[in-house]
Amino acid sequence: MLCIEIHKPEEVDSMGNRIAVAGASGYAGGEVLRLLAGHPNIEIAAVTAHSKAGQPVTDTHPHLRSLAGRTFAETTVDALAEADLVVITLPHGQSAELAAKLPADAKIVDLGADHRLVDAAAWEAYYDGPHAGAWTYGLPELPGGREAIAASKRVAATGCYAVATTLALAPILASGIGQPDDVVVVAASGTSGAGSAAKPHLMASEVAGSLSPYKVGAHQHVPEIKQATRARSLSFTPVLAPMPRGILSTVTVKPADAGLTTAEVHEVLAAAYADEPFVHVLPNGSWPRTADTLGSNSCHLQATMDSDADRIIVTAAIDNLGKGAAGQVVQCANLMLGLDETAGLNVDGVAP
Amino acid sequence: MLCIEIHKPEEVDSMGNRIAVAGASGYAGGEVLRLLAGHPNIEIAAVTAHSKAGQPVTDTHPHLRSLAGRTFAETTVDALAEADLVVITLPHGQSAELAAKLPADAKIVDLGADHRLVDAAAWEAYYDGPHAGAWTYGLPELPGGREAIAASKRVAATGCYAVATTLALAPILASGIGQPDDVVVVAASGTSGAGSAAKPHLMASEVAGSLSPYKVGAHQHVPEIKQATRARSLSFTPVLAPMPRGILSTVTVKPADAGLTTAEVHEVLAAAYADEPFVHVLPNGSWPRTADTLGSNSCHLQATMDSDADRIIVTAAIDNLGKGAAGQVVQCANLMLGLDETAGLNVDGVAP
Amino acid sequence: MLCIEIHKPEEVDSMGNRIAVAGASGYAGGEVLRLLAGHPNIEIAAVTAHSKAGQPVTDTHPHLRSLAGRTFAETTVDALAEADLVVITLPHGQSAELAAKLPADAKIVDLGADHRLVDAAAWEAYYDGPHAGAWTYGLPELPGGREAIAASKRVAATGCYAVATTLALAPILASGIGQPDDVVVVAASGTSGAGSAAKPHLMASEVAGSLSPYKVGAHQHVPEIKQATRARSLSFTPVLAPMPRGILSTVTVKPADAGLTTAEVHEVLAAAYADEPFVHVLPNGSWPRTADTLGSNSCHLQATMDSDADRIIVTAAIDNLGKGAAGQVVQCANLMLGLDETAGLNVDGVAP
Amino acid sequence: MLCIEIHKPEEVDSMGNRIAVAGASGYAGGEVLRLLAGHPNIEIAAVTAHSKAGQPVTDTHPHLRSLAGRTFAETTVDALAEADLVVITLPHGQSAELAAKLPADAKIVDLGADHRLVDAAAWEAYYDGPHAGAWTYGLPELPGGREAIAASKRVAATGCYAVATTLALAPILASGIGQPDDVVVVAASGTSGAGSAAKPHLMASEVAGSLSPYKVGAHQHVPEIKQATRARSLSFTPVLAPMPRGILSTVTVKPADAGLTTAEVHEVLAAAYADEPFVHVLPNGSWPRTADTLGSNSCHLQATMDSDADRIIVTAAIDNLGKGAAGQVVQCANLMLGLDETAGLNVDGVAP
Repeated sequence: MLCIEIHKPEEVDSMGNRIAVAGASGYAGGEVLRLLAGHPNIEIAAVTAHSKAGQPVTDTHPHLRSLAGRTFAETTVDALAEADLVVITLPHGQSAELAAKLPADAKIVDLGADHRLVDAAAWEAYYDGPHAGAWTYGLPELPGGREAIAASKRVAATGCYAVATTLALAPILASGIGQPDDVVVVAASGTSGAGSAAKPHLMASEVAGSLSPYKVGAHQHVPEIKQATRARSLSFTPVLAPMPRGILSTVTVKPADAGLTTAEVHEVLAAAYADEPFVHVLPNGSWPRTADTLGSNSCHLQATMDSDADRIIVTAAIDNLGKGAAGQVVQCANLMLGLDETAGLNVDGVAP
Repeated sequence: MLCIEIHKPEEVDSMGNRIAVAGASGYAGGEVLRLLAGHPNIEIAAVTAHSKAGQPVTDTHPHLRSLAGRTFAETTVDALAEADLVVITLPHGQSAELAAKLPADAKIVDLGADHRLVDAAAWEAYYDGPHAGAWTYGLPELPGGREAIAASKRVAATGCYAVATTLALAPILASGIGQPDDVVVVAASGTSGAGSAAKPHLMASEVAGSLSPYKVGAHQHVPEIKQATRARSLSFTPVLAPMPRGILSTVTVKPADAGLTTAEVHEVLAAAYADEPFVHVLPNGSWPRTADTLGSNSCHLQATMDSDADRIIVTAAIDNLGKGAAGQVVQCANLMLGLDETAGLNVDGVAP
Repeated sequence: MLCIEIHKPEEVDSMGNRIAVAGASGYAGGEVLRLLAGHPNIEIAAVTAHSKAGQPVTDTHPHLRSLAGRTFAETTVDALAEADLVVITLPHGQSAELAAKLPADAKIVDLGADHRLVDAAAWEAYYDGPHAGAWTYGLPELPGGREAIAASKRVAATGCYAVATTLALAPILASGIGQPDDVVVVAASGTSGAGSAAKPHLMASEVAGSLSPYKVGAHQHVPEIKQATRARSLSFTPVLAPMPRGILSTVTVKPADAGLTTAEVHEVLAAAYADEPFVHVLPNGSWPRTADTLGSNSCHLQATMDSDADRIIVTAAIDNLGKGAAGQVVQCANLMLGLDETAGLNVDGVAP
Repeated sequence: MLCIEIHKPEEVDSMGNRIAVAGASGYAGGEVLRLLAGHPNIEIAAVTAHSKAGQPVTDTHPHLRSLAGRTFAETTVDALAEADLVVITLPHGQSAELAAKLPADAKIVDLGADHRLVDAAAWEAYYDGPHAGAWTYGLPELPGGREAIAASKRVAATGCYAVATTLALAPILASGIGQPDDVVVVAASGTSGAGSAAKPHLMASEVAGSLSPYKVGAHQHVPEIKQATRARSLSFTPVLAPMPRGILSTVTVKPADAGLTTAEVHEVLAAAYADEPFVHVLPNGSWPRTADTLGSNSCHLQATMDSDADRIIVTAAIDNLGKGAAGQVVQCANLMLGLDETAGLNVDGVAP
C-alpha cells in the first residue's frame, strides 16, 4: 500500500489558527465543520452542541467522514476559550448570551442574528429579547467591509437572504442609478435555510414539488438589508423552494433617471465586483442558477433594465449554507486570522 | 347527475359532447386527454399529433392507461371537424393556421397564444408572425368572462403565468385599492410549463436543486396580463423551479390610498371570488403551496398589506397544467357545450 | 353567473353508502378523504382525528378545499357507528383496539397492520402487542380475493410494499414458473410511505438527492408478502427515495425450469391480469415509472427473463398512497357496499 | 505539504503534473475539471471538446467560475500530447480511437468503457465495435490495484455502477463468506449518470417523482463487475432515480456456510477497507445515504446477514460523478503521477 494520508500532515502550520464551533449540530454548523476540515491552515478545536454532547459528530453529520472519532462537547466557555477564534452558530438570543461570557479579547464570528443590527428599535421590531448591540458586519464585499472585518475581534456574519440581496442591491443604490425607495424583492430559499429541527412543514413529503411563501412582508432580514444597502423601503417576500440548498433573490429597483440601459447596469455591477474572488457577474445572456453555486462561496449575478416596466432587475444566486452562512464565516475568519481570504473556500460549485 | 363508472358506460349521454384534441402529444395535450378521459359527459373524438401520427397514445403518455389501444391521428381538418369542439394545443403560429381551416361554426378552444391579444402591436412585440386577431379570453372568473365564453364559438385559453397572475391582480386593480402603475411580479413555474421538447437546460440533471430566472423583463405573458388586468406597468420575472408542475406568482402593487389594511385586501379578494368554485382565498395565516393544487383546477390565494414597504402583496398558486392549461380548457369547453362548468374537474389537489 | 355546482348534487344516491374515516389526519387518511370527496356514490360521514379534534380538516390537508368547513371529530364509537362503513387509518395496535369496540355488524376496512397476518407467530416476530387475528385480505386481484372481500364485513387492507410486490410476484409463483425459495426484492418508496409525523430523517433537507436503505432484512411487510404469495424465502430491502409518492418494487425469482423465456413470463402476467381494471402489464420495451401512477389506483408491471443470470425479474410501480393505501381501501369499500368496484378511482396517473 | 491558496500560487510545483482533459464538455468531464481546478499539485493543460471547440468552458459548465476565460480546444493529438497525463472522457469507441493516436509513452486514464474488459467476447456481447484490449483496471481498492495503477501508463477507469457494486461485493466473495453464484444486485443512479445529451426520458418533467428500471438484465456493467469480483452469475437491475447524482447499490449474496452472522460480514468489510481513505464501513445501525457522498470520492458501506432469507445484503453509496467517475480518475492520476493518492479529493460529502 502506498502513502494515503488524507488528513492534515504534521507540518501544516495551524499555530494561532485553531477554530472552535459552538452549536455545531445544525446545518450551518455542519457546513462550517466541512469547510474547516478541508481548510489547509486551520485546525478544528472544540466542537460543541449542547443537546448532543457526548455523541459522535458523524451521527449528526454522516457526510463528515473525516471527523469520524470526534464527539460533540458541551457548550462551555472553557471548551471554547482555548481556540484562537470561536464560531457561534446558535439561535438568536443564545449567541449573545454565550458571547458575553467569552473573554473580551476572544475573536468571535457570530452566525446568529444577535449582533447584526445597529438600530435597537429595528431589532425589537423583528426579534424578541433585548438588543445585544452591533458588531462589525461580516460582508467583506461591502465598501470597507474587508478592512473592518480584518481589524475586528467580533464579527456578525450576515443573514442568508441578506447576503444575496445585498450583493445584488448595494451597488445599484450606492452608484446612484437606482432609487432607494420602493425596492421590491422576492427571494426563494432551499430548505436547509430553515434549519435542521424537525418541523411538519419542512418534511420531504410537504416540500416536494412545492413553492410556498412565508413571513410575507415580515421577515427579519428586512432591517438588515436596509442597513447594509441604505434602501429606504423594501418589500420582501421569502419563498420556500423544493431543494436542499440555494437562494435566488430577485431584486427590482426604480431607476434614478430615465434612459438607463442594461449595459450601464452591468457596468455598475462589474465595477463593484471586478476584484472580488467570490462575486461573479455573469456574461450577457446567462442568468444565475442556484445549483451552480452549491458547495461554493460564490455569488452569481445578472441584471437587466426593463425599460417597459421602468425597473432595474438584478438576480443573485448563492448557496445559502455557503456564501449565505458557513462560507462567509470562514471568509471572515480568514481575514480575522490574517490568512488568505480565500483559503479553504471554493469558487466552483458542485454541479450538476 | 349520476355517474358511476370510470370506464364510460354505454348509457352516458355524450351526444353533442365529442371533443377532439389537436397537438395532443405535448404535456398540456396529455393533461387535456387525462381530464377528458375522466369526464362524465364527454367523449374523446380525434386525438392528433403530427409527428407521432400512427403511434399509440400510451407510448407518449404512459400514465394514460385508460387510452391504451388508441393511436394519434394526423392533424387534419377532416379528423377534427367531426367533433363538437376542438381543443388546439399547438405552438403559436400553428394554432391560428389550423383554426383558419376549420369550419366557421366549429367550436374551438385554442391553448396556443395566437388569439389572446387584442392589440396587434403588443402581439408583434412579443411573438413572431402575423397577428391572427383576438378571440374571447378564456378566463371565466373575470367579470363577464363566464357569460362571454358560454356564448362563444372561439375561445383563447390563457397563458399559464397569466392565469395565476391575473387571478391575484385583477380584483386589486378593479376594486381601485391598488395602483395600475408599477406592478411587480415574480413568478416561478415547474418544468412542464416549458413543454416536452428535449432541451439541454430542461434536463433533470440541470434543473435539480436549481432556481433560475429567464426571459427577465421580456416574457410574452406580459401584454396578456396587462390586457386582462388593465395594469399599466408590469415588471415580470419568470423563474424555472425544480418541480414538474406548479406556478407560484407573487404580485406586489402600490396601494391607491394610505392606510389600506390587510383585512381590506382580504375583503376585496373574498368578494371577488365568493362564488367561484375553483378560486380559494385561504384562511388568514395560510399561504398557498403549489403542491396543494397539483392535478386540480384550483387557484389558492393569500394576501397581505405590507405597510412598512407600502406594497400590497398577493400570492397565487396553481397547477400550470391544471388551471394554467388543461383545466381551464375543460372549464371553457364545459361552458361552451352547456355542461356543468365544473364537470370533470377537480377542486382538490393531489397531495402530498 | 351560470350554474357552478361542484359538489354532489342532491340527486346522488348515497343511501347506505356513508363512510367514516378514523384517524384521518395522516397522509393515507387524507388520500382516503380526497378519493371519497370525489366519489360519485359515497357520502363522507364522520372524519375523526384524536390529536386534531375540533380543528378544520383543511388546516391539516390544505389541498382538500372541497372539505372547507369540516372539522375533525374525536375518534369515538358513537361518531363512527353511524356510518355504513368505517375506514380505520390508525397505527398498528390502535386499529384493533378501536375495531373491537365497534358493533359486530359494522363494515370496516382497516388500513393498519393489525388484521393482516394469519400466523400469530409471524405477527409477534415483526410487531409488538398481541395478535388481533386475521381479517379478509384486501387485495381483490388475488384469486378469489374480490369475492371474499365483497362477502366480508371486515377487511384488512394490505401494506404498501406488499401490494406492489405481491402483484408482481404472486402470478409467477402461482403459475409454477418461478421457485418460491430465494426470492429477492428491493423496493423503494416515496416519503409519504413513512407517514406524516415530523421526524429528522424525513426532513426535506435530508431526503433531497438521497436514496437510503432502512430496516434491511427486517421489514414488517415480509411475512405479509410471504402469506399472500406463498414465497418461502424472501430477501427484502426497502429504500427511501427522494419523491413524495410512489413505490417501485424489483422482484427477482429463480425460474422453476431451464429455458423459460421472457415471452412466457409476459404471458403469465398478462393472463393473470387480463380482466383487471387497475393492473397493467406494459407493452414490451416499456418499464414502469412510479410517476405514471401518481394519484391513481393503478399498478404498472413489466418483466424479463435474464437467462444469463438465471433470474426472472418483475418490476411493479404503484402510488403508495393510491393502490398502496387509499385506492385499495376505496376499491375494497366499493366491493363491500355493492358498488362498482372502480367507482371513484382513477386508472390514469397525474403526469408529468 | 502545505497549500494555502485556491487560486494556484506561482510557487505550487506542478512540474510534471499537467493534465489534459479530452471530451470535457460532458458531466464527467466537468467534474474532472472541477477537481483539477482545486487540486493543489496539478495544472490543467488542454481542455478539449470537439463539438464545442472555441466556446468558453463556462458556457457549458457555468458552475466552474474559476475557469472563466478558458475555451474548449479541438480534440487533437497535438493539443493533448503536451500534457503529462491525458484524461479521456469520451463515449465508448471514441476513446480507444483517440488513445491509439497518442504517443506510446503518454499516460492516459480512460473514463470510457473501451479498455475495461479483458474478455473480448464479453465486450462484444455488450458493446458494439471491435474490442480494443484491456488496460490496468482503475480501482485502487482492489487487492494489488493501487500498485498496478501506480506502475501503469494506461488505466481504464471503472464504470459508475461497477465501482459501487464491486466495492460492496468483492470482499464478500474474496473472503469466501459469499457464493459467487446467484448474486442479485439492484442499483439506482441519479440522472447525471445518463450523460448530458438532451433526451426525452431524461427531462426534468419526466424524472421528477419517478423511479424507473431500464436495461434490466442487459446492462453493460455486468461483465465488468463479474471480472472485478469473480462473481459467476449476476442479476443486475439498474434504476433511474429522481436526483442529479448518487448511486445506491444493493447487493445480495448467498452465504457460503450456514450460521454466518452480521458481525462476521462486518468484519470482512472492515478488514478489507481498514486502511482505505475513501471507503467507509459505517457504524452499526447506520445505512448509506447517497446525499452524504455528494461531491466526494467516498463510498459508504453497510451490511447485514438476513438469516431468515439466507442472504447477505451489502449496500454501497457513492457519488456517481465522484468515486463513480471523476474522483477515481483523479485518484488514479495521482497514483500514476507519484502524488499523494488523496490530493485534491474530498472525503467529506456536501450535505444536506
